[in-house]
Amino acid sequence: MAKGELVIIGGAEAKEGDAEILREFVRLAGGRRAKIAVLTAATDAPEEVGDTYTNAFERLEVTDIEIVDTRDRREADDRDLAARIERATGIFFSGGNQVRIIERIKGTRLDRTIRDRHAQGAVIGGTSAGAAIMPEIMIARGDDRDNPRLEIIEMMEGMGFLPGVVIDQHFLQRGRIGRLLSALLSQPSTLGIGIDENTAIVVENNQFVVIGEGAVTVVDEFGSTHNNLDQAIEDEAIDLALFEAKLHILPKGYGFNLATRKPIAPPGIKMKSRQTPTLISPL
Amino acid sequence: MAKGELVIIGGAEAKEGDAEILREFVRLAGGRRAKIAVLTAATDAPEEVGDTYTNAFERLEVTDIEIVDTRDRREADDRDLAARIERATGIFFSGGNQVRIIERIKGTRLDRTIRDRHAQGAVIGGTSAGAAIMPEIMIARGDDRDNPRLEIIEMMEGMGFLPGVVIDQHFLQRGRIGRLLSALLSQPSTLGIGIDENTAIVVENNQFVVIGEGAVTVVDEFGSTHNNLDQAIEDEAIDLALFEAKLHILPKGYGFNLATRKPIAPPGIKMKSRQTPTLISPL
Repeated sequence: MAKGELVIIGGAEAKEGDAEILREFVRLAGGRRAKIAVLTAATDAPEEVGDTYTNAFERLEVTDIEIVDTRDRREADDRDLAARIERATGIFFSGGNQVRIIERIKGTRLDRTIRDRHAQGAVIGGTSAGAAIMPEIMIARGDDRDNPRLEIIEMMEGMGFLPGVVIDQHFLQRGRIGRLLSALLSQPSTLGIGIDENTAIVVENNQFVVIGEGAVTVVDEFGSTHNNLDQAIEDEAIDLALFEAKLHILPKGYGFNLATRKPIAPPGIKMKSRQTPTLISPL
Repeated sequence: MAKGELVIIGGAEAKEGDAEILREFVRLAGGRRAKIAVLTAATDAPEEVGDTYTNAFERLEVTDIEIVDTRDRREADDRDLAARIERATGIFFSGGNQVRIIERIKGTRLDRTIRDRHAQGAVIGGTSAGAAIMPEIMIARGDDRDNPRLEIIEMMEGMGFLPGVVIDQHFLQRGRIGRLLSALLSQPSTLGIGIDENTAIVVENNQFVVIGEGAVTVVDEFGSTHNNLDQAIEDEAIDLALFEAKLHILPKGYGFNLATRKPIAPPGIKMKSRQTPTLISPL
């Protein structure tokens, strides 16, 4: 059986109406026959968040839903608790604080069971904090709407489901390009992926496709011709500089090859188009 | 005499303390002997804004300061009013609403006098709305913190002091990358320049240098391999896509050559540096 997909959501995904992103997560987990485990370690309000996702997945006709909350590593090492996700076909990390997921789950029996299930084909989803944890190195916290500086971010080990990238969520809604660039420059050779709210990437076999309402911003600094990281490591308050990074804007239907670092247009869309729109004349 | 410089400010420039940006504007205008005209057409509060800049420039030891307010084109066509800037060595556009500057000044006698003075060497400065008007085509209004779509922006004729670019101000503070990209895609072959608050570019002879506190974000979509503008022109609500634009982040001391579209590192800074910073380990 192939390794399962990842559904990485920029937060605030629609839970009513079409619920496009959660619907896709459910579809990948087996549709009505999905067995979904929702992990609420990230949140301060596990009951409320558990209820929200129970309702959301029930609306999508899933009947087998487990809310798995762990407040500390001892709980996450519990054999009976881990057993509750042993048959899961979809494992979903809620939002909250990404640091709690790492502190409470990483390296525990629960973590090992999640990895086993993923290797056996279960889809792993995560929203907001649950998206941040996907890389090997994640943004633990950072300042919004600021220019790139090492001092505005704190990086930390992530769950490592998607190596080689840094992910930021609520991306355009919270003005996080400076934060993503800071994270990216602090981690050479990673790819920066900024995911808007109610927007997700679905990763399968080293490619992802965008679904949902907003856009995914990809910044690739591999091949950039200059940065001033040397000085910034000496003094984290220094304003970061970067020359000739690549920027891709990928809305719904667009994809990206993580191996070749190349964006992919939807079928039937030609690769270069240029035409001048009408201007509004003021006078 | 050479054409004067442009000092294009991302808004909220410091008016007390070092007042680095206004100080540079004054220096370029002749220092203590500068004759500065402040144009307040953009603002709803011309007296207050006039007082603010009178105080700011007096602090910088300028004694010859004219506040030139025009509420309509008839006023801006007045011979006596235009005569008030005929000896200006520095002309400064205040913030407010950029559309008012175009509606109230562009094409009038005042506009012609500004251009004459600029050609004769006077520096032109502008902050916020006064920065937005610098290109031939400007962002008249737009939505912040949203993904790129033609419907989120309205473009309009600018003053045209700096052709070939689109400028956005309060850039990272207001999360405007989506707005700048929308503007950029709507105007093929322009360069997108996002200027942070209390940050400015000083343009001289087809190059600019960054001064101030934040960063300047340059997006160059010349050479990009794909966009979906064709469809977006049919339906302005379509989410814009863009592949392989170039992204440059330029803090203070960095520059840019507008003719070659290449960023410039400060003297003594080598062009490629890479080193891994220390990670925080959570466990």
